[in-house]
Amino acid sequence: MEGLLVPTVGVGKRPLLRFLGTSFFLSNIVVGASPGFPVSQRSSCATPTTPLFCFFRASVRPPSPQVPLLQVSGPLLLLQLLETPLLCLLSYASLVATNAARLRLIAGPEKRLLELGLRRAQGPDGGLTASTYSYLGGFDSSSNVLAGQLRGVPVAGTLAHSFVTSFSGSEVPPDPTLAPAAGKGPRVDLAASVKVWLERVCAHLGLGAQEPHPGERAAFVAYALAFPRAFQGLLDSYSVQRSGLPNFLAVALALGELGYRAVGVRLDSGDLLQQAQETRRVFRTIAAQFQIPWLESVPIAVSNNVDEEALARLAQEGSEVDVIGIGTSVVTCPQQPSLGCVYKLVSVGGQPRMKLTEDPEKQTLPGSKAAFRLLGSDGSMLLDVLQLVEEPPPQAGQELRVWPLGAQEPCTVMPAHVEPLLRLWVQQGQLCEPLPSLAESRAFAQLSLSRLSPAHRQLQSPAPYQVALSEKLRALVDSLSAGGPQ
Amino acid sequence: MEGLLVPTVGVGKRPLLRFLGTSFFLSNIVVGASPGFPVSQRSSCATPTTPLFCFFRASVRPPSPQVPLLQVSGPLLLLQLLETPLLCLLSYASLVATNAARLRLIAGPEKRLLELGLRRAQGPDGGLTASTYSYLGGFDSSSNVLAGQLRGVPVAGTLAHSFVTSFSGSEVPPDPTLAPAAGKGPRVDLAASVKVWLERVCAHLGLGAQEPHPGERAAFVAYALAFPRAFQGLLDSYSVQRSGLPNFLAVALALGELGYRAVGVRLDSGDLLQQAQETRRVFRTIAAQFQIPWLESVPIAVSNNVDEEALARLAQEGSEVDVIGIGTSVVTCPQQPSLGCVYKLVSVGGQPRMKLTEDPEKQTLPGSKAAFRLLGSDGSMLLDVLQLVEEPPPQAGQELRVWPLGAQEPCTVMPAHVEPLLRLWVQQGQLCEPLPSLAESRAFAQLSLSRLSPAHRQLQSPAPYQVALSEKLRALVDSLSAGGPQ
Repeated sequence: MEGLLVPTVGVGKRPLLRFLGTSFFLSNIVVGASPGFPVSQRSSCATPTTPLFCFFRASVRPPSPQVPLLQVSGPLLLLQLLETPLLCLLSYASLVATNAARLRLIAGPEKRLLELGLRRAQGPDGGLTASTYSYLGGFDSSSNVLAGQLRGVPVAGTLAHSFVTSFSGSEVPPDPTLAPAAGKGPRVDLAASVKVWLERVCAHLGLGAQEPHPGERAAFVAYALAFPRAFQGLLDSYSVQRSGLPNFLAVALALGELGYRAVGVRLDSGDLLQQAQETRRVFRTIAAQFQIPWLESVPIAVSNNVDEEALARLAQEGSEVDVIGIGTSVVTCPQQPSLGCVYKLVSVGGQPRMKLTEDPEKQTLPGSKAAFRLLGSDGSMLLDVLQLVEEPPPQAGQELRVWPLGAQEPCTVMPAHVEPLLRLWVQQGQLCEPLPSLAESRAFAQLSLSRLSPAHRQLQSPAPYQVALSEKLRALVDSLSAGGPQ
Repeated sequence: MEGLLVPTVGVGKRPLLRFLGTSFFLSNIVVGASPGFPVSQRSSCATPTTPLFCFFRASVRPPSPQVPLLQVSGPLLLLQLLETPLLCLLSYASLVATNAARLRLIAGPEKRLLELGLRRAQGPDGGLTASTYSYLGGFDSSSNVLAGQLRGVPVAGTLAHSFVTSFSGSEVPPDPTLAPAAGKGPRVDLAASVKVWLERVCAHLGLGAQEPHPGERAAFVAYALAFPRAFQGLLDSYSVQRSGLPNFLAVALALGELGYRAVGVRLDSGDLLQQAQETRRVFRTIAAQFQIPWLESVPIAVSNNVDEEALARLAQEGSEVDVIGIGTSVVTCPQQPSLGCVYKLVSVGGQPRMKLTEDPEKQTLPGSKAAFRLLGSDGSMLLDVLQLVEEPPPQAGQELRVWPLGAQEPCTVMPAHVEPLLRLWVQQGQLCEPLPSLAESRAFAQLSLSRLSPAHRQLQSPAPYQVALSEKLRALVDSLSAGGPQ
């Protein structure tokens, strides 16, 4: 994916922590001893107290393969066994967070983005990851209730077409009456009141009162009786203009008489932008006609294979869409369905290692590294510096000579602020600092995104964000390169 | 995805069964009672013995949205809650099986296909699904050991670059000696024997014996001492021709003296086809030079972002590649990262329902249906027929009048064989027949694929496979369509 990456190492590390911090992996790992590693033997390859150091960085980062997402040190055998699990836990989570951040940038700050992708995920666990990290990347909520329960993702949803179409109109509610919202006053027959309102609405809209589908209306009434404070309509099971909208309005106005306000409508087919405009127009005329001002601003949600292009259209100026549900496009990341994270050896027994190849993209940087973000006085991101872990950190207000990656000459830079990017996270099997909540992590990721300059933030051909090496790290790379293949 | 689909409903139904056949769902489903369905209440919405009927079909099928993958009947509330879980469990599994089947068709029957995609999956559970269903779709094995343990997928793998590059050459093995394969005779110092063979191999290849990387060779020796009957080499950590290949040959020949045969090599970068040809050429000359005929045919495995196009090249006639490892391309299905399965209401209280829309692709077929595959006398697939569940099944040898989907006229067809496609699978919470093993399911799917005509099997613009309606079903569709929106 072009542009910058939202890694989840620092912000969404719960599954990683569960994986590393318990003895599950350590006691259950399957180690074979015969060809093809058949599952014939189990052995514990390390104890839970094996020293294990993890470093991480917790903000938006350039997608350069040379900038580490995570550094791990410990016994070689254990770290080799960790390769696939770490990549499996990090790659998709970072990918979906980045994808969600792109979608948030397209949508702008005002639109509410609802993740609806569980059914398109790689099973329930993939769906849980998608819901969690799309929230982190900038979505507002998810329809995945398990993500709400297990991860604290705000849960939202509407109603299903199968609920609406399961009603024929001949159903009789067990009790069609409803008490007023304030709790005082007699119960009212909602179904009867809806009939009265339907006549009025249809007359105003120039429709026959028999046109709106009776089954759809029965479904709306049943929903309203069950959730009077959360009534919403799915408008497109039959025809939005001739059925869904008048049925919704009849129920919403009948509820309104009792002091309840409808919370929204959803459009799930057709030209979503145009239908939202038309729906809002009808809301306004009915609100004026019956003097019910809140009806004007009932939120309009849309869904139906919304991708980046459709989202840009739905978020354009003047759009009457309030909530945008996105499933497949956020979960499967169709623009780039995988993130090619790699796990490379950079040091053995204190000796730096480096993979030399003719492809500079595949060349690794040797040694344990520290990383710092240099910021200007206005908080803007100047560049990131990689250096050896033993070097003193850059100082705010001090000039620094660094070697930008890919450049043949050094440059000097004077940061107004310096932020460390890799932090010690687990040591001796223990967390070094309390984990932030998911909401805190989301806020941090959003702050980090907001600091990007417009040139770095643009989605097509963004300006590459600069990463530079310290003089010592650059010298180490040169000396190892001169020595030939390592 | 173009062409035909390998659904996993009938063949890979374990996760579904675990989901439906236990009370997990039934006792733990979260049902909210306030706006946005917050997770504030738990209630059991049905007992585990709630009648639940599932039908399925178990072979390759046309990707027409009108042909059911699964039919479920039961209490409406329960079935509505099942929508997302069923789609989540079925969609990706069917997608990855179909994708694997495409890759198998490209590779041809001889090449061994190894799934390596765990690190690119949507977490560990997504990876397990990918490994299981890519095997079902036609892969031979997976590097995911958990899929071997839990699902019986054959497990295979090679060794990691990080293992090779972690050795510098200065390591001393705890015990460098190895007993002969037959168990008789004295132990031999393998490391010393490798040195002798390295001189001979390098002399033959025109290389200096100091050129091959000593760390790589130390890694190969360590691997050979641990797995003498499964020795294999990863050749491209430094240079295939100048390091990996001579180091591998030295160790393989030293092992060969003790009666062990190396099991393979892997190439993971560069021009894989060309390197495989060159590696095979070297195997042949060394085999001839030292009169070790088995060396000629040591399997050559390749990997490195192999997609459909690269696979076609690697599988071309004359290719010396034996095993092809595919990760990202099989797991993420980049050509089409999601399968748009939908779950639609077709009958309520015995009354057929049908969604009418202007888009014929989105129109559903009403009523509970049976499906049959009509076959010619040579076993070829003629067409599939959908009919109402109460109609008598088509009979072999009897002429049948049916209405092909999208056609305005009926046609007649006389099948030599008739296969039912939808079968009763779970009734009253009980399995109606024993589940086939994963290997049996794989064989069935492969048989089903082999019956496709070449026109249907081709990957680009395949001929559409015909699906037809019985006269009764067609009449029902017509009468419901005439009645306007349902």
